[in-house]
Amino acid sequence: MATGEPASGRFALPELDALPGDLKERIEAVRAKTGFVPNVFRVLARRPDEFRAFFAYYDALMLREGGLSKAEKEMIVVVTSAANQCPYCVVAHGALLRLFSKDPLLGDQLAVNHRQVDLGARRRAMLDAALKLATTPQTFGERDVQSLLAQGFTREDVWDIGAITALFALSNRLAHLSDMRPNREFFALGRGAAPSV
Amino acid sequence: MATGEPASGRFALPELDALPGDLKERIEAVRAKTGFVPNVFRVLARRPDEFRAFFAYYDALMLREGGLSKAEKEMIVVVTSAANQCPYCVVAHGALLRLFSKDPLLGDQLAVNHRQVDLGARRRAMLDAALKLATTPQTFGERDVQSLLAQGFTREDVWDIGAITALFALSNRLAHLSDMRPNREFFALGRGAAPSV
Amino acid sequence: MATGEPASGRFALPELDALPGDLKERIEAVRAKTGFVPNVFRVLARRPDEFRAFFAYYDALMLREGGLSKAEKEMIVVVTSAANQCPYCVVAHGALLRLFSKDPLLGDQLAVNHRQVDLGARRRAMLDAALKLATTPQTFGERDVQSLLAQGFTREDVWDIGAITALFALSNRLAHLSDMRPNREFFALGRGAAPSV
Amino acid sequence: MATGEPASGRFALPELDALPGDLKERIEAVRAKTGFVPNVFRVLARRPDEFRAFFAYYDALMLREGGLSKAEKEMIVVVTSAANQCPYCVVAHGALLRLFSKDPLLGDQLAVNHRQVDLGARRRAMLDAALKLATTPQTFGERDVQSLLAQGFTREDVWDIGAITALFALSNRLAHLSDMRPNREFFALGRGAAPSV
Amino acid sequence: MATGEPASGRFALPELDALPGDLKERIEAVRAKTGFVPNVFRVLARRPDEFRAFFAYYDALMLREGGLSKAEKEMIVVVTSAANQCPYCVVAHGALLRLFSKDPLLGDQLAVNHRQVDLGARRRAMLDAALKLATTPQTFGERDVQSLLAQGFTREDVWDIGAITALFALSNRLAHLSDMRPNREFFALGRGAAPSV
Amino acid sequence: MATGEPASGRFALPELDALPGDLKERIEAVRAKTGFVPNVFRVLARRPDEFRAFFAYYDALMLREGGLSKAEKEMIVVVTSAANQCPYCVVAHGALLRLFSKDPLLGDQLAVNHRQVDLGARRRAMLDAALKLATTPQTFGERDVQSLLAQGFTREDVWDIGAITALFALSNRLAHLSDMRPNREFFALGRGAAPSV
Repeated sequence: MATGEPASGRFALPELDALPGDLKERIEAVRAKTGFVPNVFRVLARRPDEFRAFFAYYDALMLREGGLSKAEKEMIVVVTSAANQCPYCVVAHGALLRLFSKDPLLGDQLAVNHRQVDLGARRRAMLDAALKLATTPQTFGERDVQSLLAQGFTREDVWDIGAITALFALSNRLAHLSDMRPNREFFALGRGAAPSV
Repeated sequence: MATGEPASGRFALPELDALPGDLKERIEAVRAKTGFVPNVFRVLARRPDEFRAFFAYYDALMLREGGLSKAEKEMIVVVTSAANQCPYCVVAHGALLRLFSKDPLLGDQLAVNHRQVDLGARRRAMLDAALKLATTPQTFGERDVQSLLAQGFTREDVWDIGAITALFALSNRLAHLSDMRPNREFFALGRGAAPSV
Repeated sequence: MATGEPASGRFALPELDALPGDLKERIEAVRAKTGFVPNVFRVLARRPDEFRAFFAYYDALMLREGGLSKAEKEMIVVVTSAANQCPYCVVAHGALLRLFSKDPLLGDQLAVNHRQVDLGARRRAMLDAALKLATTPQTFGERDVQSLLAQGFTREDVWDIGAITALFALSNRLAHLSDMRPNREFFALGRGAAPSV
Repeated sequence: MATGEPASGRFALPELDALPGDLKERIEAVRAKTGFVPNVFRVLARRPDEFRAFFAYYDALMLREGGLSKAEKEMIVVVTSAANQCPYCVVAHGALLRLFSKDPLLGDQLAVNHRQVDLGARRRAMLDAALKLATTPQTFGERDVQSLLAQGFTREDVWDIGAITALFALSNRLAHLSDMRPNREFFALGRGAAPSV
Repeated sequence: MATGEPASGRFALPELDALPGDLKERIEAVRAKTGFVPNVFRVLARRPDEFRAFFAYYDALMLREGGLSKAEKEMIVVVTSAANQCPYCVVAHGALLRLFSKDPLLGDQLAVNHRQVDLGARRRAMLDAALKLATTPQTFGERDVQSLLAQGFTREDVWDIGAITALFALSNRLAHLSDMRPNREFFALGRGAAPSV
Repeated sequence: MATGEPASGRFALPELDALPGDLKERIEAVRAKTGFVPNVFRVLARRPDEFRAFFAYYDALMLREGGLSKAEKEMIVVVTSAANQCPYCVVAHGALLRLFSKDPLLGDQLAVNHRQVDLGARRRAMLDAALKLATTPQTFGERDVQSLLAQGFTREDVWDIGAITALFALSNRLAHLSDMRPNREFFALGRGAAPSV
């Protein structure tokens, strides 16, 4: 890593060269595409079976074709991860949201307070439901599902919204467990040309 | 199901016969062992890729040999799921805890208040840390890790404690999303002979 | 006690033989009926005047003929005591609820999350109101009373719901104060024949 | 009542003349002593058995000779009732505290924030423990008991502190249930000569 | 000060004689009017520029002619300061509320629980909105503004309600920072003739 | 404004030309320096007296020479405003923090979770105390002051930390009241050259 800061403040991490072939392959593919190795890959690689399960789950939800756009999925990740105050997920997925939405401000806005972003009723309902499931899951109920259906979401969309929220409930906790730090590269990604100051 | 109650109050579930072969196989293996199909298998089967990822993650953590006993892992599941008021996980894993610990009372005691169960300092520290990561992950930090190490847990044990907590943060939310109900069979499992009343 | 565990983890308890006659009489009547002495009697007996007042209050509310069934009264006790994480009250009154309702699962279900139990609108309203008075009494107001009246409860029923909640607000705190432990016998009471495992 | 405001905003109250003899007697004794009938007597009188049990409990704790002074008992009532935002108990017992402590300011100070009143370590510990048992009873534990013992309180004093807190957990909820209002007379009681303005 | 208690429990305060002329002038004007120097003047005087800015803000809002009466403004101060458990602001502005409203009970009633005071819908809406902005500002939104407009408040009134709440969010925190104590004189101010006891 | 988005989502704002001379002057000075008019100036300008008081307070604290650096003051603003989920203050002062600290990442890191930023014990203590005063002012006490003094802060520094926190408790609430939106320019300010993506 160019940053000089370790990926985890808390656990020793394996050398990439020493990893099983399938992990190495996935990691090199990411590096080829983005130019660096996101720290979540380095941290989870210390437990190859959990690495495989995590990214299989991630792919199943985040790459799945369905009613939610890639940007909408990242909105859910940013808003629920901000509620859990998870630095890695807010910064890394804030960057992805900038890239997918072509909006350089949306990630920062949603990370502070999704209620004060002009999103339209559909996306507001999506984020309200996700935030409720993330923070007070015991109160999530039929009324919340009906609110989503009333905005035109299908039952499969409802599952996607809830399951992405659930996956990042896991992911946020892994990041807090390992004191996972966002790579420096994520902070500026997708911001476009910065005005000179 | 003999119970007449659906596994999910909210989503249509696939017929078991129509599932991919590997899902059918896993489900039949469970039925052969326990005598019934736990509802989590029925509900997750509606998304085969997510089913595979979830149970791969589950096996990687819950079947892993390491410093935590099977009963200790179930203690973590019961206590954190109780904090999230998740009926499926509290009842199903309360049953597993009775079986693994040979203690017919422990599941019910932990589900109400782990602070009032005589567990010894090691297990109390384990459950305190898990509960903190489950409910206020943003406050989990180095001090919590040090508390675990001071009780003799290794760094790998700390990872296990945190990762099991994280997996059930996901699992609890899937259960609330789908209104997943515990099978009737779980309630009595492992209670031993009930005193005649 | 057959259990070997003390009734209170915190206060020395009197010998039953040394108690005033009216306390001894009440305690022996309970033992004759249920086969053991519930720990609440042992713990409260250390202060005979408070014992008398507590059980006079208990009888006035729990034995009173009115619009609430015996099972409904126990539902209130279980749900509000679970919110206060009171082991004695959840376990002992969970057992009574199994006996009164003839439903071996209802106590465990309500102790985890009453919102996910199919109770009908009347009982759901009863438990919502009780839980609000138990946990955030300062927000209980006319709107809550009207919600109960709208479900067909009378003003006297409203008083019963609120007063039972209030009595167990006291009872839960006495149990936490004294680290009161549920007798082993309560855990299995009213579960019916357990399936062989 | 001279005030023209009903004792309860929510329940019809019996005529004092129609009450059972023992209730009438107690009420007349209070009126003879203080010059008015505190509303708690009017409200609870609608259920004579509960009235008797409540005041038996009250007398057992509040009139009991022991390690706590009358003023200290009222401090517990004021602080825990303020946390529950109970108008009747804060105002009525704030008045009693002024009378017992001969300090015209103490009730108002404690009702706002007991942490900012110069009470000494013993009383601060007493109120900290009472407030914890009142508001988060599930976290009250051995450490809290030890804090009290370390300040010189006996085990019986600990019971008194906890039991008074528990009784007013009940009392506050009865007051919220019935929308019980403090008599006007309580507001000025024990303030001494007001400075001319 | 006649009271013998320092204005701040935490910071050394300047001699009044040593203050800049404009501060001395303002303080003497207050003393001439009320007969004593309220402690907020003594505490803030240790930083003259902040003193000037604070009282300029205070005058701009509290002396402004508009849709809110002087008593209504003080109601906002008392209710939001009580939520922040700020002794100085609750006691000092409770006194001002008694003077402006000519109601000797209103301050004490609002300090305990504004929901149980018969205020009418307009004032209830005003205090509900102020309390929300004071305690959970991130959830204050258009719906809250609309609730106020629906009660006949103008947009300028909404600004006043919100800005007074905001100013006392600052003021309460300065008081907690400095452990500011209410002058004894405030407790009795405006209570009228106390009944003889 | 170039952005096309109004400075306030809720209140009509005055034309800059129509403002009193001193406000116009201050606003033009800011525009000359930063190249745009930050929305807080536009929104507060609708009440010139409050504008003057607010910025007098702001200057008194934020421009004051003392023990806190400009960057440390902005850290307090970012962390407490993030806790209040205030978009304007987090984004605008996050930008100022990038400029003053020359660290393009610090603002985003602190806005998510100050506990996971490597700040050293002194700044960690400063932000812990500020956050406590911001979110639970009623629990701020002598122990918090002592923690700051133990890190080498002077009493005047403690005042600065607390008073800046208090001023932004006000500022955050004005921003929520008016639905104040950060200017687009703030998001990119001080990020340095963005890596090409």
